Amino acid sequence: MGFWGIEVKPGEPYGYQSDEFKGRLHITQATLGLGESKERSIVQCSMGYKSPIFLCSLLPNKNESCPLDLEFEGVDGLIDFSVIGKRSVHLSGYFVDDDRDARDDYES
Amino acid sequence: MGFWGIEVKPGEPYGYQSDEFKGRLHITQATLGLGESKERSIVQCSMGYKSPIFLCSLLPNKNESCPLDLEFEGVDGLIDFSVIGKRSVHLSGYFVDDDRDARDDYES
Amino acid sequence: MGFWGIEVKPGEPYGYQSDEFKGRLHITQATLGLGESKERSIVQCSMGYKSPIFLCSLLPNKNESCPLDLEFEGVDGLIDFSVIGKRSVHLSGYFVDDDRDARDDYES
Amino acid sequence: MGFWGIEVKPGEPYGYQSDEFKGRLHITQATLGLGESKERSIVQCSMGYKSPIFLCSLLPNKNESCPLDLEFEGVDGLIDFSVIGKRSVHLSGYFVDDDRDARDDYES
Amino acid sequence: MGFWGIEVKPGEPYGYQSDEFKGRLHITQATLGLGESKERSIVQCSMGYKSPIFLCSLLPNKNESCPLDLEFEGVDGLIDFSVIGKRSVHLSGYFVDDDRDARDDYES
Repeated sequence: MGFWGIEVKPGEPYGYQSDEFKGRLHITQATLGLGESKERSIVQCSMGYKSPIFLCSLLPNKNESCPLDLEFEGVDGLIDFSVIGKRSVHLSGYFVDDDRDARDDYES
Repeated sequence: MGFWGIEVKPGEPYGYQSDEFKGRLHITQATLGLGESKERSIVQCSMGYKSPIFLCSLLPNKNESCPLDLEFEGVDGLIDFSVIGKRSVHLSGYFVDDDRDARDDYES
Repeated sequence: MGFWGIEVKPGEPYGYQSDEFKGRLHITQATLGLGESKERSIVQCSMGYKSPIFLCSLLPNKNESCPLDLEFEGVDGLIDFSVIGKRSVHLSGYFVDDDRDARDDYES
Repeated sequence: MGFWGIEVKPGEPYGYQSDEFKGRLHITQATLGLGESKERSIVQCSMGYKSPIFLCSLLPNKNESCPLDLEFEGVDGLIDFSVIGKRSVHLSGYFVDDDRDARDDYES
Repeated sequence: MGFWGIEVKPGEPYGYQSDEFKGRLHITQATLGLGESKERSIVQCSMGYKSPIFLCSLLPNKNESCPLDLEFEGVDGLIDFSVIGKRSVHLSGYFVDDDRDARDDYES
């Protein structure tokens, strides 16, 4: 499955549907997109009825990249990533193969 | 169990009750909430009779996000997260399935 | 296989061909190269027909290093790393031996 | 075993005695304590006859938190953490259960 | 094996000889040494005939610590760490016991 990356644009929430087939999604980095605005861009995620949680806050010309370490798996269902601010944010990471991780010992 | 996130507000400590059923909680990120204050917000945690320990210090317009790598498990009991400062802090992370991690070999 | 490192220069995309033989490539750090430009250097990666994704943004005299946590494996095929900006970026990391990670239990 | 945290105060080195019983100590974060000084606080560790090694440098009002990824285990013996500077530093992390990590296969 | 740390001084490259006996070396942190210079210190590593790769760039009074995640193992042979700049850099990390990691299953 390997690499995963999206650009989350202001006003265009990105819906990620986690499910068992895809394996766990490990999001490891956020980087500010291009633009003129000097305002911060905050990435938040929303799941169902819960309040949105801020995942990172990027500051133009100060801190434009932020390491993350988030995992989403099947039980998380639909996750909405959205941006508060005027510049988009690129999220990147990779899928973790549960089999690799679980070292399925049933055959041993 | 997947994603976990809370907003810790000034004056409202958040009590997290770790227990064996939930698995280990891995907290991986802190992000400053919205607000006008230019003062730092510090997240601290308290467990029982011990002195509170500062987990991170977020500076408005300078460093508004901070990676963390903290784990809490059943034996930790009740943990109180609180904020010193005027702006809230969003904490995020995920539950680690001990079975996945432990690769329960008893069936093998 | 161990350590891996490259310098990605402006105008010279670096093509990395992932394949099963090499194992997974874990890229863990980006550092700005030498130069006079005060402009940011952004590292992006492109895979096939998808839009490029920004991996990090380095700011001269402010943030010249950035931790990463990216993995590329065989199924990712050809990945092009390129720089937007005037200064090169050094990427470093290491190969993860899947055998080590998978703890191949077939022999046990 | 779970969470671990200490406050290292200037002039008061903290001696940590690693041993096999406790398991590996994983220190993952340093955060500057309260105070008026604008000078940096550096955390260093000393082991036996070796020269002290700086682990992180925290700058008031600039970078008051720093992720770490250090492990100490039984063979390391006595480790002295001390602070160069006028403000204390809070260190936090957690114990890694070697059994969990080692997935003791002897019973399998 | 546990903790590992060195101070790399300007003009004094540090040669690390990786070999199978020592296990994998995991370098996780770089911190600027003391000094008056306001210039950046860059840590680079060289292996055999390859071009040096920059591992991190530390800026006095701005970013004096940098998390790393680098691994060196037996096949890497001799690695030279050196500093470009006037102030030394402390590198720290720990040895990863391959047995622990590999969960040597031969006895099982």
